[in-house]
Amino acid sequence: MAQFPTNLNEAIEWLASFGGEPEGGVTRTLYSQPWKEAQQALKGWMEEVGLLTYYDAIGNLFGRLPSPNLNAPTILIGSHVDTVKSGGKYDGAYGIIAGVLALLHLKKQYGEPSINLEVVSFCEEEGSRFPVALWGSGMMTGIYSYKDINNIKDSEGISFETAMMAAGFGLTEYRVRKDIQTFIELHIEQGPTLEKVEKSIGIVKAIVGQKRFRVTVSGESNHVGTTSMKWRQDALHGAVNMIHDLYESVKEYDEDLVTSVGQLFVEPNVPNVIPNHVQFTVDARHPKESVLHSFCQRFTEQFHDHAQKMNLDSQVEMWHEVQPAQMDHSLNEIIQSICTSNSITFHRMNSGAGHDAQLFARICPTTILFVPSQGGISHSPLEYTSTQDLEKGLEVLIQLLHQLAYNH
Amino acid sequence: MAQFPTNLNEAIEWLASFGGEPEGGVTRTLYSQPWKEAQQALKGWMEEVGLLTYYDAIGNLFGRLPSPNLNAPTILIGSHVDTVKSGGKYDGAYGIIAGVLALLHLKKQYGEPSINLEVVSFCEEEGSRFPVALWGSGMMTGIYSYKDINNIKDSEGISFETAMMAAGFGLTEYRVRKDIQTFIELHIEQGPTLEKVEKSIGIVKAIVGQKRFRVTVSGESNHVGTTSMKWRQDALHGAVNMIHDLYESVKEYDEDLVTSVGQLFVEPNVPNVIPNHVQFTVDARHPKESVLHSFCQRFTEQFHDHAQKMNLDSQVEMWHEVQPAQMDHSLNEIIQSICTSNSITFHRMNSGAGHDAQLFARICPTTILFVPSQGGISHSPLEYTSTQDLEKGLEVLIQLLHQLAYNH
Repeated sequence: MAQFPTNLNEAIEWLASFGGEPEGGVTRTLYSQPWKEAQQALKGWMEEVGLLTYYDAIGNLFGRLPSPNLNAPTILIGSHVDTVKSGGKYDGAYGIIAGVLALLHLKKQYGEPSINLEVVSFCEEEGSRFPVALWGSGMMTGIYSYKDINNIKDSEGISFETAMMAAGFGLTEYRVRKDIQTFIELHIEQGPTLEKVEKSIGIVKAIVGQKRFRVTVSGESNHVGTTSMKWRQDALHGAVNMIHDLYESVKEYDEDLVTSVGQLFVEPNVPNVIPNHVQFTVDARHPKESVLHSFCQRFTEQFHDHAQKMNLDSQVEMWHEVQPAQMDHSLNEIIQSICTSNSITFHRMNSGAGHDAQLFARICPTTILFVPSQGGISHSPLEYTSTQDLEKGLEVLIQLLHQLAYNH
Repeated sequence: MAQFPTNLNEAIEWLASFGGEPEGGVTRTLYSQPWKEAQQALKGWMEEVGLLTYYDAIGNLFGRLPSPNLNAPTILIGSHVDTVKSGGKYDGAYGIIAGVLALLHLKKQYGEPSINLEVVSFCEEEGSRFPVALWGSGMMTGIYSYKDINNIKDSEGISFETAMMAAGFGLTEYRVRKDIQTFIELHIEQGPTLEKVEKSIGIVKAIVGQKRFRVTVSGESNHVGTTSMKWRQDALHGAVNMIHDLYESVKEYDEDLVTSVGQLFVEPNVPNVIPNHVQFTVDARHPKESVLHSFCQRFTEQFHDHAQKMNLDSQVEMWHEVQPAQMDHSLNEIIQSICTSNSITFHRMNSGAGHDAQLFARICPTTILFVPSQGGISHSPLEYTSTQDLEKGLEVLIQLLHQLAYNH
């Protein structure tokens, strides 16, 4: 008989062993061998703690603690089992493990709930094997369909469909459930806020909207020494003026607005030649779509103005967009009162990263709770959250589910 | 018997055939087979037109039209035979060819000069095979010595010394000549100025000084979405503020100051990660050392100030420096009067690129004359100067040499 974990810490290490690497990282990409082994092991563990288990058509795994009331709706709790390449032990995994342990505790302590409680181990969220993210929650919420994976391949040329079928999934139609009443996710913060403000729980108000742009600036390549400043069409000088203004204008917005230029390429990129071509990315995020939209419109206009003044060509092209998702206010009020009455410190904040919860927010009351990430580090073998913080998150989740599913 | 060219245009095409490429470029790097063939061919041509020819110890080629006066000094005229990879037909080549044709004309027309006239085909100026530039003029002027090529290799791992000896040079001590009274170079402009101002001859006041820097900015890599603007240590944001200020402050200097950031690398250079490391180059040039020095000191201080304010580390390291070289005022006065009396339009200007003349300026009266480069293009197969412009340059050179070497 398999050895299953008996507490939070053991469970984190146990799940990290599927896809675990000698250097401490975890790689468990969608439909890979370590992924299959992890889902199968979680299924075994769920069954051992007394949950009814099953997969849906694409490999989301469920462990159900049913209500005796056959018409009861379902509260879904969980996160994703997949990881980025050489990721950490906590991202996704913590939300699934906490869900299983919460149901185990509630079942032992209080027996059958009046509303079905169900933990989910989403097959995919990271977008790290195929250029599709939030696959598990996207299909569950009916926002995605099989059409979204047509002609999509991984870096080795394996098609999404082939990989899915080889893992034993994608063989039947996907049936979108109608019984989900509430979705709750527990996740590491993946940022430095909770550590900086010294609080244990992050109560998420909204998952920010994102817009990502590719900006291309074109000028003329010339000899650095022989071309007077006034005759230059320097693409890097233009890009620098644009990015300088981008960061200046963000100061006029509220603190929730973040923007970054993470990637920048220069051509020909040699010391004594004036650059004729620069391409850079802009990532902008804010919890309110209207604010995000106005900011992006503003910098797009500024960029074109700079280009025109400097006799350069510019293109600003949006290549990725995510709508902001508001978390449920009532759920957050309950969480806050649980924290207060248990002397657990908390901080109301936004999530700057995307999560499965952002898609559920479109179909049902949803929230996501954060625990601190040491140094704000994530997507790295150095990802770490203290046992104490992990346990506080679990404690809040148990009390929340107790209030939602047993007080009827 | 070899076919030698009979006019300027023929000579340009003929010399370009040594190292000529199907796409129109010319590659004739130091001590390579096309280089050897070109120098040998030039030697043959010089002999045919009646010059005394010889090589020095490193492969500079000379063609001498001697004065009957055994104590006469020497006026040296010429430029470099080497090219960059896939360079043009005019850079360097024009100066040698014009020198040979000028001496041919003067000899035919006026016979023996009272001062020795000597054309030189410098072995190397571009620094395109080995990381040493101005090798030919550096050795002739005694500014370089064999020590400067110790431990220097080309991109294929061949040492400078091996390549030199394989070509038959570097076998004897280098003897620095004491008889050079004047150095005159005729060269394409390699910039757009003459074309923009619509003049035929550029009379060069100074070859600018250059300082080149490598700037390193280090911060901290973090998740774009989860890291508030106020907690960031964004190396690219820092670099952008530095470069923005660099280009702003250049506006406070005179028009002769040029500066450029030609190369910039970002790490990790992915759209959703805040850059933790940026490295960029700064190239600054001006004909006056004091101005150049003050500008470089100013931006170095500004860069460190920006880094400090933004909680970043910065390093500013100078890796290349060339002193400005003043061209001879009396020679330029004679050139100006020749232009005026022949209705040849001229423009007094600085050279933003380096040339052999800059080293000779340290040891004797020296000047360099420019002819226009179409579109300012050089170091490219597209390099082009019209026959008319080439001929005007040759005409001015002939009259200048006539005044200097025959009016005694």
